[in-house]
Amino acid sequence: MELIDAYWRAANYLSVGQIYLLDNPLLTEPLRPEHIKPRLLGHWGTTPGLNFCFAHLNRIITERDQDMIYIAGPGHGGPAAVAHAWLEGTYSERYPDVSQDAAGMRLLFRQFSFPGGIPSHVAPETPGSIHEGGELGYSLAHAYGAAFDNPDLVVACIVGDGEAETGPLAASWHSNKFVNRRRDGVVLPILHLNGYKIANPTVLARIPFEDLVKLMEGYGYHPHLVGPDHAEMAGTLDTVFDEIAAYRDGRADRLPMIILRTPKGWTGPREVDGKPVEGTWRAHQVPLPRVREDASHLAQLEQWMRSYRPEELFGEDGRPVGEIRRTVPRGPRRMSANPHANGGELLKPLRLPDFRTLAVEVKSPAGQSSEPTRVLGGLLRDVIAANPRNFRLLGPDETASNRLTDVFEVTDRAWDAAVEPTDEHLAADGRVMEVLSEHLCQGWLEGYLLTGRHGLFNCYEAFIHIVDAMFNQHAKWLESSQRITWRRPVASLTYLLSSHVWRQDHNGFSHQDPGFLDVVVNKKASVVRVYLPPDANTLLSVGDHCLRSRDYVNVIVAGKQPVLDLFTMDEAIAHNTRGLGILPWASTDQDQDPDVVLACAGDVPTLEVLAAAAILREHLPALKVRVVNVVDLMRLQTPSEHPHGMPDAEFDALFTTDKPVIFNFHGYPSLIHQLTYRRHGHQHLHVRGYKEEGTTTTPFDMCMLNDIDRYHLVIDVIDRVPGLGSHQAHLRQRMTDARLEARAYTREHGEDPPEIRTWTWPATFSS
Amino acid sequence: MELIDAYWRAANYLSVGQIYLLDNPLLTEPLRPEHIKPRLLGHWGTTPGLNFCFAHLNRIITERDQDMIYIAGPGHGGPAAVAHAWLEGTYSERYPDVSQDAAGMRLLFRQFSFPGGIPSHVAPETPGSIHEGGELGYSLAHAYGAAFDNPDLVVACIVGDGEAETGPLAASWHSNKFVNRRRDGVVLPILHLNGYKIANPTVLARIPFEDLVKLMEGYGYHPHLVGPDHAEMAGTLDTVFDEIAAYRDGRADRLPMIILRTPKGWTGPREVDGKPVEGTWRAHQVPLPRVREDASHLAQLEQWMRSYRPEELFGEDGRPVGEIRRTVPRGPRRMSANPHANGGELLKPLRLPDFRTLAVEVKSPAGQSSEPTRVLGGLLRDVIAANPRNFRLLGPDETASNRLTDVFEVTDRAWDAAVEPTDEHLAADGRVMEVLSEHLCQGWLEGYLLTGRHGLFNCYEAFIHIVDAMFNQHAKWLESSQRITWRRPVASLTYLLSSHVWRQDHNGFSHQDPGFLDVVVNKKASVVRVYLPPDANTLLSVGDHCLRSRDYVNVIVAGKQPVLDLFTMDEAIAHNTRGLGILPWASTDQDQDPDVVLACAGDVPTLEVLAAAAILREHLPALKVRVVNVVDLMRLQTPSEHPHGMPDAEFDALFTTDKPVIFNFHGYPSLIHQLTYRRHGHQHLHVRGYKEEGTTTTPFDMCMLNDIDRYHLVIDVIDRVPGLGSHQAHLRQRMTDARLEARAYTREHGEDPPEIRTWTWPATFSS
Repeated sequence: MELIDAYWRAANYLSVGQIYLLDNPLLTEPLRPEHIKPRLLGHWGTTPGLNFCFAHLNRIITERDQDMIYIAGPGHGGPAAVAHAWLEGTYSERYPDVSQDAAGMRLLFRQFSFPGGIPSHVAPETPGSIHEGGELGYSLAHAYGAAFDNPDLVVACIVGDGEAETGPLAASWHSNKFVNRRRDGVVLPILHLNGYKIANPTVLARIPFEDLVKLMEGYGYHPHLVGPDHAEMAGTLDTVFDEIAAYRDGRADRLPMIILRTPKGWTGPREVDGKPVEGTWRAHQVPLPRVREDASHLAQLEQWMRSYRPEELFGEDGRPVGEIRRTVPRGPRRMSANPHANGGELLKPLRLPDFRTLAVEVKSPAGQSSEPTRVLGGLLRDVIAANPRNFRLLGPDETASNRLTDVFEVTDRAWDAAVEPTDEHLAADGRVMEVLSEHLCQGWLEGYLLTGRHGLFNCYEAFIHIVDAMFNQHAKWLESSQRITWRRPVASLTYLLSSHVWRQDHNGFSHQDPGFLDVVVNKKASVVRVYLPPDANTLLSVGDHCLRSRDYVNVIVAGKQPVLDLFTMDEAIAHNTRGLGILPWASTDQDQDPDVVLACAGDVPTLEVLAAAAILREHLPALKVRVVNVVDLMRLQTPSEHPHGMPDAEFDALFTTDKPVIFNFHGYPSLIHQLTYRRHGHQHLHVRGYKEEGTTTTPFDMCMLNDIDRYHLVIDVIDRVPGLGSHQAHLRQRMTDARLEARAYTREHGEDPPEIRTWTWPATFSS
Repeated sequence: MELIDAYWRAANYLSVGQIYLLDNPLLTEPLRPEHIKPRLLGHWGTTPGLNFCFAHLNRIITERDQDMIYIAGPGHGGPAAVAHAWLEGTYSERYPDVSQDAAGMRLLFRQFSFPGGIPSHVAPETPGSIHEGGELGYSLAHAYGAAFDNPDLVVACIVGDGEAETGPLAASWHSNKFVNRRRDGVVLPILHLNGYKIANPTVLARIPFEDLVKLMEGYGYHPHLVGPDHAEMAGTLDTVFDEIAAYRDGRADRLPMIILRTPKGWTGPREVDGKPVEGTWRAHQVPLPRVREDASHLAQLEQWMRSYRPEELFGEDGRPVGEIRRTVPRGPRRMSANPHANGGELLKPLRLPDFRTLAVEVKSPAGQSSEPTRVLGGLLRDVIAANPRNFRLLGPDETASNRLTDVFEVTDRAWDAAVEPTDEHLAADGRVMEVLSEHLCQGWLEGYLLTGRHGLFNCYEAFIHIVDAMFNQHAKWLESSQRITWRRPVASLTYLLSSHVWRQDHNGFSHQDPGFLDVVVNKKASVVRVYLPPDANTLLSVGDHCLRSRDYVNVIVAGKQPVLDLFTMDEAIAHNTRGLGILPWASTDQDQDPDVVLACAGDVPTLEVLAAAAILREHLPALKVRVVNVVDLMRLQTPSEHPHGMPDAEFDALFTTDKPVIFNFHGYPSLIHQLTYRRHGHQHLHVRGYKEEGTTTTPFDMCMLNDIDRYHLVIDVIDRVPGLGSHQAHLRQRMTDARLEARAYTREHGEDPPEIRTWTWPATFSS
């Protein structure tokens, strides 16, 4: 117990040092103002509690040879995780200049929250972490994601009582209904009640304690209360790990969790300037704020740091004394060095079946239809079958709705709660994870990927906005990780967005929002990729590509409703490889300059462009129309903006610099302008897309409401190709009439006109 | 009880009719295929349970003369709410063509999920609703928002067991810790366990029942279980409303909630094509999918509809029979006609103090600093004092951190849990609502605004992305509401985003994301407004303006750190009225064409532009520099795109059509390109902004990392003004050196160089 206390004091000392000290790390001389950082930045309040947990968990790891990682939900307490990694020696292994001696300790202190140094939170830079300590709410979901398919692992997850107020965290407790006791690891939640968030008490610390116990029991856990006491914590951890062992052996049904109650800012200053600090919200950030300017604060800091008795903890050389070094687990058992927390070290490439064998046969382009996501379901089925322990398919109860149903030929939905006779495809070992929470899907998948596995998140397009903030944080994690040499690449996070804006037949306006793409493209080009495959075969090829990729966020938008098959498999691969290209069979500008370019991205916009091209070919056979389809949206940018960016010369050759381009886009039109504003022909670009018009109506009416329909596109061409306007007033009127007739038909019959529903590329054109 | 059952059968009959029938609404003849809609769209599964609740709650309303509204969490069951409003007569009052007779019933059925008709979900079009039935998770937060400051109101909130899996809903149960029993109304949650979501069982329906009871007790409620039985439901509601009365009198501490367990698709087809439907996930949408094509489905539908015995429920004229009409509450007691659910009817304008009295005195522009949000805090304080019952300030524990602390001179934080001696500013009647959940803040505020009150949501800028999806849904609600004549305007939802990307001193990369603006501008121009006041006085004036507005979403971005005061109060009002304008004192192009325009939006970018202008004036006194500040971002668009949009002629006069414009922007640069791509001078526009570079570092280092700093702006000017590049290589080099020196200083000292920290507009220029 004394050793644990010594380790804890050492970690606390190092934590305070990081917040305050520029120099004099071992307090070999009395503290002077010039030893103090000019800007005091960081969060002390949660730190001693985190250190307390680390110290005690290390004993368990050593005594039981337990494979364990930790997730620090209160990741604002960055100094704790850094102190821990330094004490375990991992920090100096990862960053040799921060050596485990006095010079290294000085650097350790100095770099924290310092220009050119390290962030104040737990971050990708922190060894042993898969969880950023910025935005709160995701620790427990990350922990479960890490535990899935790691049967020997325990993920200790410290949940702050502030974080516990967030929605995602409140939902995450129920993750235990999706765990397979034989094939998955164990999450040990440690709810850390220090009583306060930034400036307020926390809810869970102030409800009646019996309510809190019931809440945790109601969530399905066996709660254990621990106060700020070494013996209590040690005894409880022994009990808890016995319970975990019993659960694994099938001798117990419930998993334990710990409620740890400690003062906020524990062991820090009791009072500052006459106001209570330890145990109050005032301990949240920097308890002594004016150390450089105020001699009494300076004295109080020195007294505080010396209260940890550093002379017992570190040798004169600054190295932790032998007793402390010996309490540390060995090699990869150190939580700061556990390879699960640098998942790329464990990553095995997926065994990927040949997607070409699943190709839809295409005899003539746009002559028949397939349901793209249903075809992709075949690929996902084969991926699951070939990778039964390191791939998961996640979605908020929409896997069947998104028509990926073929996966249920080889697997089920993960489910560890009651099953009734009418249920289908539920099993403890299911590879499909469905919970009506986009937050949980995202959080689980992030945890799963960052510990070196693979997966795909399928979601209704509109509701992926629910995890905008989580996407942002994961993208930032990847952006930072790519610069950290010891972080090994992990599998990309791939979204399949289906049930998209143009086909919300059962739902309507609330389900129509293609704006996630706008959120995505704000993140660094080194991380984000966006694909809009227009048919089944291009989707297959894009899917395969994304599952092979590393360290990206891939967004695939693809419909579940039947769309025309445009490409044979070979053509699809070639088209995807280019990322965009002319559809020669739909174009009438053979080897010449076109009069107009009809561009498209997305399945429904592509269909309407093709139908418009057919009308133009019939009515204006002399007009040279070029049809360009874009799969890889990032190709539209310049190479300086995105690695997929297209050189200007190629872009100009495809889109021209002087001819009108009518671009029919899946999403909000502004995104295409945003991606192309640097292009030469930009002033000739006219974009159609979703303009926030919609309700529960027919597919074609949705197109008409937003002016992306074939008739309107023809009108756009007439209005924009010089000379056509005056000569083609008749055709223009005909298109206007066609819109009115289609609308009238739809409002009378409740479905689209037959010529719209059954339209294919005219066979006469294909010859 | 028979009457309740009759009402319930009538509602169920009307619900089925909406999903299926084009004609023959009263089944006066046998059903034929042509009576059936060609596309069957809607959600039956949850509907009978919703109808059951409506029927029983109506009895309570009548018997107790209870003021009550309902929130239908499972809003996919749109037919239920519509049926209810029609039976209560409200539907025909709102939509006279849908009369309460056979012709009206035919139209009622036909319009549902039909082109030109109404959405399939509960929506703004639905009388009696403040809650859209699209994206799940927000019902309970909306309910609490509606209950605040409505002491006599009960908000019955039906929570679906699917929705209950979402994070926001899981957190919302804890809203009861923020309720004042004397001044607020009561929320009655009815957790509707029908066992399934789209294709899966639900978690709460499948955990041990004793766990569910503990969970609800742990959340602080007294749960009551009800099965699918009229007598049970009626008896329980009597008990529950007695408990509510006891709570109001102070005789009880806990509020009740109901767990209602019914089969999914209750009273619908038991089996279809040999597979069980009632009581399973197959009842989710349309239980009989092929009624038009399959005679046996058609017969089953007719049998199903006749099982409700419509001949007992409706007269030959189609009007509900007298017994049913008499069960309906009167006038505004009808839940479908309750004015709380059309909050604009109850809206009283805020009493707004004169913000001019709070103005910061500005002797010379940019000569001194203020903390803008601290100044705004004074206005909010006065607003709260003058409007003690219809204004709330919400935030995720950041009100003090965002420096709005003056509000605590007149109010406290709402809190109904334990209080300890070291706590400050907690009270049951507090007007400041702080919970560490952006979802709850947003949901509460939406509910509060939609029931006719006022409020403001203050949040860290980066984390407002957490509610992107909720913002989208609220904006869509407003977009739809603006077209519905009987929906009266409500107060705007105003965000104050502070602790923004450029000043994350304690935090770092995870806290740096200005992209919410990109999400916002995708919504309809009739709804969204974005303001970036650069100083304290402009913020005061913008704040006042936003609090007066109706039916908008206002986004205000403003810093909490000291920024230079640029405008006197009168100047600030004039500047805001224009929305953008030249800063003449910072410009050197008096009444002439400028050589270059330095534009800016946002406090930190404006500071850097001013400093760059000062450098240019000193070193290149002959260069004609125009400094333009933009407060109202929507002014950049054209009038065809946004009502605030600026005519081209004015835009051209301000920005020129041919001179380089260096635009220093608060957010991602692409947004400025997106807003201005139609402008004549767009190809000369060069935008600087956040490019996803950051960590925990000093303010000026953040600017340099993203190239928005003064030195880089001067380089941009030299590079872009024709002729300067060759002549000013020396100044260019000096700027490059200045950047390197600043960085070196920062890395050595841990703070910005003194000349940066203390910079003000040179007094020599002001004369």
